Amino acid sequence: MSDTNPQTYRPINFAEKYQLFDDRWAPRVIAELNDYQFKIVRIEGDFVWHHHADTDEAFIVLDGTLRIDFRDGAVTIAAGEMFVVPKGVEHKPFAAEEVKLMLIEPRGVLNTGEEQNERTARNDLWI
Amino acid sequence: MSDTNPQTYRPINFAEKYQLFDDRWAPRVIAELNDYQFKIVRIEGDFVWHHHADTDEAFIVLDGTLRIDFRDGAVTIAAGEMFVVPKGVEHKPFAAEEVKLMLIEPRGVLNTGEEQNERTARNDLWI
Repeated sequence: MSDTNPQTYRPINFAEKYQLFDDRWAPRVIAELNDYQFKIVRIEGDFVWHHHADTDEAFIVLDGTLRIDFRDGAVTIAAGEMFVVPKGVEHKPFAAEEVKLMLIEPRGVLNTGEEQNERTARNDLWI
Repeated sequence: MSDTNPQTYRPINFAEKYQLFDDRWAPRVIAELNDYQFKIVRIEGDFVWHHHADTDEAFIVLDGTLRIDFRDGAVTIAAGEMFVVPKGVEHKPFAAEEVKLMLIEPRGVLNTGEEQNERTARNDLWI
């Protein structure tokens, strides 16, 4: 660290970011890593069946319990857990109560994958 | 979900994974997202100055407080916070007490970046 004029860089605080919005199903970008984005989102209820043809998708649960249904089963992901949905695999997130979730995926990926419908959120929305 | 023979997929639980090792500075891969890896590591003390010429590097603190020094300043990252070190930027992690940290970066990235020294850990070690 330089003795003269040291910079204090700010970390990204998840709780602070969540205080900035309360709508659901609308992911906010909080960071980028090369051409990947970290997005946080509030979800509650049922999402739509969809898949991402070209990319895996990482789910990290920050608060609550998320279930992701697959055509052949399901995974339940609690706070402090993560799961990676492989590319091409149909999935449908479900949250009985509100879940705070972080998604990691390449820039440009739509939340509803190959489908566009009433759940399709604005992409690349930073907070 | 199919009514016949549904699969129960397992999430990746950070606390469970940390119970499987207690050495420091030796990242373990817990998941992959395309050609990126999620690694967890315990660190305490001073790391070495290094940089990654070709990639950004994401730090998510799961427990404890991490400081990353830069040549012109520093960032302090607590549990529930993250920071992305841009590619090419020299940095040196420091933890006064043990920190549980998750790193996200492309497969093949060495923990000591362009340098190889006594802190260089085995790469691609899964847990």
